[in-house]
Amino acid sequence: MSGFGVRSLRQIFRCAIIQFAVKGDARREEKRMAGLVGRLVVGQSGGPTQVINNSLVGVIEEALAHDQVTGVYGMLRGIAGVLNESFVDLARESKGTLALLRRTPSAALGTVRYKLKPEDYARIVEILRIHNIRFFCYIGGNDSMDTAHRVHLAAREMGYELRTIGVPKTVDNDLAYTDHCPGYGSAARFVALAVRDSGRDTEAMGRSSPVKIVEVMGRNAGWLTAAAALGRQDPSDPPHLIYVPERPVNDQAVVEAVDRIVGERDHCVIALSEGAVPDTGLEEVDAFGHKMKGGASDYLAWVIQAQLGLKVRQDKPNYLQRSFSACMSHVDADEAYRVGCAAAQLAVEGESDIMITLNRQAGPAYLCSTGTAPLAMVANDERRLASEYIDKDSSDVTAAFVDYARPLIGTPLPPLGRLARYPVPRKGEPK
Amino acid sequence: MSGFGVRSLRQIFRCAIIQFAVKGDARREEKRMAGLVGRLVVGQSGGPTQVINNSLVGVIEEALAHDQVTGVYGMLRGIAGVLNESFVDLARESKGTLALLRRTPSAALGTVRYKLKPEDYARIVEILRIHNIRFFCYIGGNDSMDTAHRVHLAAREMGYELRTIGVPKTVDNDLAYTDHCPGYGSAARFVALAVRDSGRDTEAMGRSSPVKIVEVMGRNAGWLTAAAALGRQDPSDPPHLIYVPERPVNDQAVVEAVDRIVGERDHCVIALSEGAVPDTGLEEVDAFGHKMKGGASDYLAWVIQAQLGLKVRQDKPNYLQRSFSACMSHVDADEAYRVGCAAAQLAVEGESDIMITLNRQAGPAYLCSTGTAPLAMVANDERRLASEYIDKDSSDVTAAFVDYARPLIGTPLPPLGRLARYPVPRKGEPK
Repeated sequence: MSGFGVRSLRQIFRCAIIQFAVKGDARREEKRMAGLVGRLVVGQSGGPTQVINNSLVGVIEEALAHDQVTGVYGMLRGIAGVLNESFVDLARESKGTLALLRRTPSAALGTVRYKLKPEDYARIVEILRIHNIRFFCYIGGNDSMDTAHRVHLAAREMGYELRTIGVPKTVDNDLAYTDHCPGYGSAARFVALAVRDSGRDTEAMGRSSPVKIVEVMGRNAGWLTAAAALGRQDPSDPPHLIYVPERPVNDQAVVEAVDRIVGERDHCVIALSEGAVPDTGLEEVDAFGHKMKGGASDYLAWVIQAQLGLKVRQDKPNYLQRSFSACMSHVDADEAYRVGCAAAQLAVEGESDIMITLNRQAGPAYLCSTGTAPLAMVANDERRLASEYIDKDSSDVTAAFVDYARPLIGTPLPPLGRLARYPVPRKGEPK
Repeated sequence: MSGFGVRSLRQIFRCAIIQFAVKGDARREEKRMAGLVGRLVVGQSGGPTQVINNSLVGVIEEALAHDQVTGVYGMLRGIAGVLNESFVDLARESKGTLALLRRTPSAALGTVRYKLKPEDYARIVEILRIHNIRFFCYIGGNDSMDTAHRVHLAAREMGYELRTIGVPKTVDNDLAYTDHCPGYGSAARFVALAVRDSGRDTEAMGRSSPVKIVEVMGRNAGWLTAAAALGRQDPSDPPHLIYVPERPVNDQAVVEAVDRIVGERDHCVIALSEGAVPDTGLEEVDAFGHKMKGGASDYLAWVIQAQLGLKVRQDKPNYLQRSFSACMSHVDADEAYRVGCAAAQLAVEGESDIMITLNRQAGPAYLCSTGTAPLAMVANDERRLASEYIDKDSSDVTAAFVDYARPLIGTPLPPLGRLARYPVPRKGEPK
């Protein structure tokens, strides 16, 4: 989990010719001498993101730079591509294609959600053996890291030498042992912009339709919903309320908060996680006669409308949050590329059964180096939004969260304007 | 409705000092000499757009350039601002604020949907008279043009000299007598990008959740939904089906088309207008046990899931379509500004009871000049998607539509990449 900080700096300054002499290099040099030679295969798994193809390109470009790698294959649709022996030859792709993929959202190899069955392992190792695939890079979230770990175990058990490296990816930002996940920064940027701009729309409409709920992805973790706070220029800007799955939502508290905020400013904008659930549970919800089948946003809209008589508008950008590429975070794209590079490099250097992580460096400027964590530990963990990032009344995030997340969304959001609204003295009779 | 083409060129080349001698100038010069002097008031009405503040700034900046204009006021919340005598002094706003507003979505003055009552007219004219407001610019869609026309009539009837000019605005693009409406281009760009990128997400997921519906704004007109076609790089790219309100949707035709497309390419992406309704009407829908209360997209998702057993995902970006400013069309923003300028200029020059229009010029490069149309004609008309723009099977748009709409979304969409996917020969036993 540590000891790769300096190596990661090398990763950053790859253009420089100087190589740092670092602790651990001797051990790796030994493994390199041992000389595992063969093909590398890379796959993409789980939900796509805006930047997952950056990781793919990172793996490919780094792999092609090593003599030990005799070919670079892609699995079509993740592990299903191995089971079906559906490989494509990524070494033949043009540099132009790879450059375009760095700004192309979604998973270029196709993706899959497939839980391995006991009988699959022998097949997987057999297919890898036939193609002399010795390096296995798998880009995904918890479940994908679990798959990679099991492939590692199966290969070891069957005496097949294989280096298995996980590459983190998820807009949910819920992987443990890493400062954050590639994919999160771009989705967070989209959410911040979406809530900010749609919030302006609600402000302009005023009392005629004063409440807006923007439903944000994240069934278990509120990281992405919390990112809505990054769209604020002033403390009074939207979102006025943020609800995350980490804190059960109390209907009455919401109703009172909305009533107060609409009273103060004629409108109220809510960033609501799709996984935010009422603290009363579903029974109570059924007593309202509502089955919640429409999700958290429909339910809350219904509660607010019923109790306050206010018109509630909803935005459900759903899959746009993880695919809308026009506002990709360049920090996110770069980091996604770098974790891909690090995966191929460490595989070649003899590491296995680890996931690449991002470690934030201390210092005045934002900088992450890459590190590693054991696949099994990542697979069995889930990182929810930290308590220090949730405001004490559970309807906002803290300044500490904003400090954490702001660098990840890349270029500062372009500022918006507001009229000063210099009042004109009244001359007529009041209406 | 015509005769302002040359004047509009002057509008475009305002930096140039040369003034063209044009037909009609003499008449306007005469009116200018007559010298109506007073304040100008501007308001925003109806649903906001990404670029409606560009029109506001255009009105303000042009108005401030004319000696006849003794002040520039803004109505807070459209015509309600007049009725309530809620004006702000826009001449005091800083240049910096106005510059920021040009990239700020939503209506900076606040907006309103209010249908004038018979007793309102006397009040409106009275308030205008008290403040010596002689120029009335109103930014909005059909209903707003109707309001402006009625204000014009009321002033004339009460012997109060007032110049009333409408400034077109709507993401729906449904105003007649203009090539297109400011607001449409930016919303169209968002929709094109959204369907393109979310479509890539669906492509990557493949058979596990093969159908995506993106619900697009437009209750009566399909212009915005049609814009989804602008996201295609290749003919086979999403959206694979486009349904607009101009053509009733036949459930069975949709089901057959989706079945065929999923069979061919493992996924199917649909751009569906919120106003696209089944050709069977609502009774038939009730017979399915579904009340359509969730809207067109929920209904179609339900039909496809029930009949084909395919998982259907939905995106409902709703208000993001008219507010998301990160991908504003610069063509749209510029035109919105120019129609604002033209409104203030023509008001000062003595025109009244007209709306500014955009007239596309013939020629190899895209260029629109401004023109005018009578307010009453605009108010009583609605322009739906032209038949020549709808494909014969009613599930796509034509090349003519793409030619029409492409210049409006501004900078060409950045291209996306796709792997060539060079196949690796199989060596193992088939699974």
